[in-house]
Amino acid sequence: MLKFLGKHLILELWGCNPEALDDIEGIEKMLVDSVEACGATLICVKTHKFSPQGATGVAVLAESHISIHTWPELGYAAMDIFTCGEHVEPAKAIPIIKEFLKPKHIEILDLKRGIRLNEGDLK
Amino acid sequence: MLKFLGKHLILELWGCNPEALDDIEGIEKMLVDSVEACGATLICVKTHKFSPQGATGVAVLAESHISIHTWPELGYAAMDIFTCGEHVEPAKAIPIIKEFLKPKHIEILDLKRGIRLNEGDLK
Repeated sequence: MLKFLGKHLILELWGCNPEALDDIEGIEKMLVDSVEACGATLICVKTHKFSPQGATGVAVLAESHISIHTWPELGYAAMDIFTCGEHVEPAKAIPIIKEFLKPKHIEILDLKRGIRLNEGDLK
Repeated sequence: MLKFLGKHLILELWGCNPEALDDIEGIEKMLVDSVEACGATLICVKTHKFSPQGATGVAVLAESHISIHTWPELGYAAMDIFTCGEHVEPAKAIPIIKEFLKPKHIEILDLKRGIRLNEGDLK
């Protein structure tokens, strides 16, 4: 049986609302709401607005991180939701993200991090 | 020809020095040095030490982010080096990371984010 330490969802979000992608306060709220939806614990959130457009936001969690980087001019956002601990469910952030960014298309890569076969195979 | 917006290296680091994985000041320096090695611009770095062990660090960049989450008890670290811009080369951080964490084994997944066929195919 495979065991793992982290759940890492990689989201490619296309056709998003350009205004949302450039709305730094809205992005910060989306991150905080996403943390809560996942059942994670927020340590801090940091956002940064670029000129003339684009934003970066990272929520540092007790269970890893959630990040977003946006290109409003392309309607694109790259998000990562990386959580550890069985009680946290990263996919529960997706409705929050869809509601705010309104992507027309989402691709999701579902990675497991720190995969182990069993306690004896740790290296 | 495929175009992309971001270069995202996913590093699975096993057999690391447990002391380094729990050394929050050393991790912060490793992150800052990694940013410089990549040719990226640091906006801020945030680290957090867990009890009884383990650490998280995120460097927020003008060109996305570098993150680390550690499990000293397992000798494991999960790192992500996500950069955008042609002038930034995320792989140049790897020697800095190897020097500090001394992993016995590294797996690397090399993702491109925001892949596009051409300017007419955005979405």
